[in-house]
Amino acid sequence: MPGERAVTGPIVGVVGGGQLARMLAEAATPLGVHVRVLAGAQDEGAAEVVPDTVTGSPHDADALRAFAATVDVVTFDHENVDHDALVALESAGVAVRPSVDTLAFSDKAHQRRAFAAAGLPVPDFVVVDGGPEGAASACSFADRHGGRVVAKASRGGYDGRGVWMLDGADLSGFVGDWRGAPLVIEPRLELSTEVAVLVARRPSGEVATWPLVETVQVDGMCDEVILPAPVTPAVAARAREIAREVAGTTGAVGVIAIELFVIGDEVLINEIAPRVHNSGHLTIEGCTTSQFEQHLRAVLDWPLGPTEPIAAVAVMVNVVGGATGDPRERQAAMLASVPEAHLHLYGKTSRPARKIGHVTVLGHDVGTARRRARLAADLLAGAPTDEGMEGSPT
Amino acid sequence: MPGERAVTGPIVGVVGGGQLARMLAEAATPLGVHVRVLAGAQDEGAAEVVPDTVTGSPHDADALRAFAATVDVVTFDHENVDHDALVALESAGVAVRPSVDTLAFSDKAHQRRAFAAAGLPVPDFVVVDGGPEGAASACSFADRHGGRVVAKASRGGYDGRGVWMLDGADLSGFVGDWRGAPLVIEPRLELSTEVAVLVARRPSGEVATWPLVETVQVDGMCDEVILPAPVTPAVAARAREIAREVAGTTGAVGVIAIELFVIGDEVLINEIAPRVHNSGHLTIEGCTTSQFEQHLRAVLDWPLGPTEPIAAVAVMVNVVGGATGDPRERQAAMLASVPEAHLHLYGKTSRPARKIGHVTVLGHDVGTARRRARLAADLLAGAPTDEGMEGSPT
Repeated sequence: MPGERAVTGPIVGVVGGGQLARMLAEAATPLGVHVRVLAGAQDEGAAEVVPDTVTGSPHDADALRAFAATVDVVTFDHENVDHDALVALESAGVAVRPSVDTLAFSDKAHQRRAFAAAGLPVPDFVVVDGGPEGAASACSFADRHGGRVVAKASRGGYDGRGVWMLDGADLSGFVGDWRGAPLVIEPRLELSTEVAVLVARRPSGEVATWPLVETVQVDGMCDEVILPAPVTPAVAARAREIAREVAGTTGAVGVIAIELFVIGDEVLINEIAPRVHNSGHLTIEGCTTSQFEQHLRAVLDWPLGPTEPIAAVAVMVNVVGGATGDPRERQAAMLASVPEAHLHLYGKTSRPARKIGHVTVLGHDVGTARRRARLAADLLAGAPTDEGMEGSPT
Repeated sequence: MPGERAVTGPIVGVVGGGQLARMLAEAATPLGVHVRVLAGAQDEGAAEVVPDTVTGSPHDADALRAFAATVDVVTFDHENVDHDALVALESAGVAVRPSVDTLAFSDKAHQRRAFAAAGLPVPDFVVVDGGPEGAASACSFADRHGGRVVAKASRGGYDGRGVWMLDGADLSGFVGDWRGAPLVIEPRLELSTEVAVLVARRPSGEVATWPLVETVQVDGMCDEVILPAPVTPAVAARAREIAREVAGTTGAVGVIAIELFVIGDEVLINEIAPRVHNSGHLTIEGCTTSQFEQHLRAVLDWPLGPTEPIAAVAVMVNVVGGATGDPRERQAAMLASVPEAHLHLYGKTSRPARKIGHVTVLGHDVGTARRRARLAADLLAGAPTDEGMEGSPT
């Protein structure tokens, strides 16, 4: 019956049926907002819990047009959507939020150039194509930065894929042989910490930022997020100021996640994602308004909500597949050890290195909350834990 | 496709498709728990947001049996379910939670008798049938209590329906003419305050109670709920002790709501409901574990979660229909005035005196939170407000 139900109130169309669509739908229900999902397949995570899921490829212009015609606003679970089709939708007057211009910031080369041009702080960088000319340019850049650089595919990378740590000797060959999208080459920086800040902006211009979080990366993939970030008030203020500027520079509508490098007192933009983001999942329980509710409010041009923390500390740990079995067989055992864990499973089958859920723990001190959240995630994933079962409450 | 989807993990079957089923489903999604709803009609509030909704009457034994055969545990949105059919399910080994014996406590006469027999504190009472003999018995009771009594239908009453304030002169005629279920007659007490306490119990015996809330009744219908309740620590401790005893006496599995009269230092049980309850809606944002998540954990025999408050104050106000139009046209206007309001709409059409949603506001002081929550509810309901629009945030 998708699409046939009589709906009162606004309809938000979400392109993509992954966990972000799923959590957007979870936030929509109490608001009385109807979510319609365009999923690539009916077994995606959102389809399981969203009655109004239609199936179609985000690369099929006809499917996108037909979907857009049934909703009030189009937004996204991911950015891997046919560009020309979105341009056509926008030209036809469809509310595409974020816009095609904002979605262009998914390209890391575009980000760097546009932010540098706007005077926003970014690492030194050069954008090169694969081939001998690019290799020469990359090596010249590396020579000016001590020989140790990072190469990032401008498009298509995520969760640590599309990022390579290269020393001078390997760089020339790598870039020379590269045949993909342009590469961003940047120095390998000695970071004090990595942080992220979320910002939401609505069409009328209202902007809201959340408190900074620390992001802990493992093998280039966000593994753990901690609120508050261990930075000085000046760094935190600077990061939130940058976030507001990014929202303006990108013309964002909805939530944007901004990942930042902190080096001493300096704050540099690493990269942004023009959507709700893994670094913001702890806002569900940890802040007055979650990133998912805020994104819906923003794309509907509703007033934004307050973003202050609910608790002194919030820690999120991703649940990553790899061990045997399904995490849904282990919830009870996990809750016996960590009854305060806020569990979020995405309805995905477990595969190595696949994010299949997350847990958030609120608390009073970072050490305890991290330990508890990690234990919960390990128990769910079926991984061996240092602590094992702590015994069931009675 | 209801019922045909391949489901991993436990399936909780909810009989009834109202707002309680809807909010149970909202809590189930992140837990990876699959909810299947037996709704009376496809336009009930839960059907709109629960993909796996099947239609069938809770008074149709065949429909109940077929539904129960497809789920791991049967629980309830309401207690108005065919009794004999549930007995048959239980006899056939279906996990009916709460059990038929616990559901029997929906009957106010049974409650009073069982609690009095168990030594639990209840108001003085007499149970009478309609007719001259019952009228005589009721009048004799009234004479011993100053002539001012309350008559309550033992079954079928809710939201102030089925409750009558009667003075001696009217009592005889009312009871004499009464043709419904037995009446509970009790003295009209001078209350200090009315409070409620939720308790959850799982089959293994683990019990958890939440902090007390104050319930503000208007025309016999719960209008507003305030955490914390304005009582002494001794009264609060006594109420939670009573709640644990009620959980044991009723053999509860899942959440039970216990409404209490406070008279000075004395605490008396007014009535209980063997299910999640309006007085517990503020636990969604206000406590570490909501009543809805806890009910799911309890009926699945999973470890229960901690129940402590998240904020110093939480206030819930019901949104009651009556004014023109649909509240889903007024969310944005409401959020402009009360951006911090946590909105919950139930997907119900607006009718006078019908609960169509609620709002919860967290805060630091009761006065401010009550004022803000009331303003939000009035704006949603389309009711005139004292304060009107306070201006949009910028």
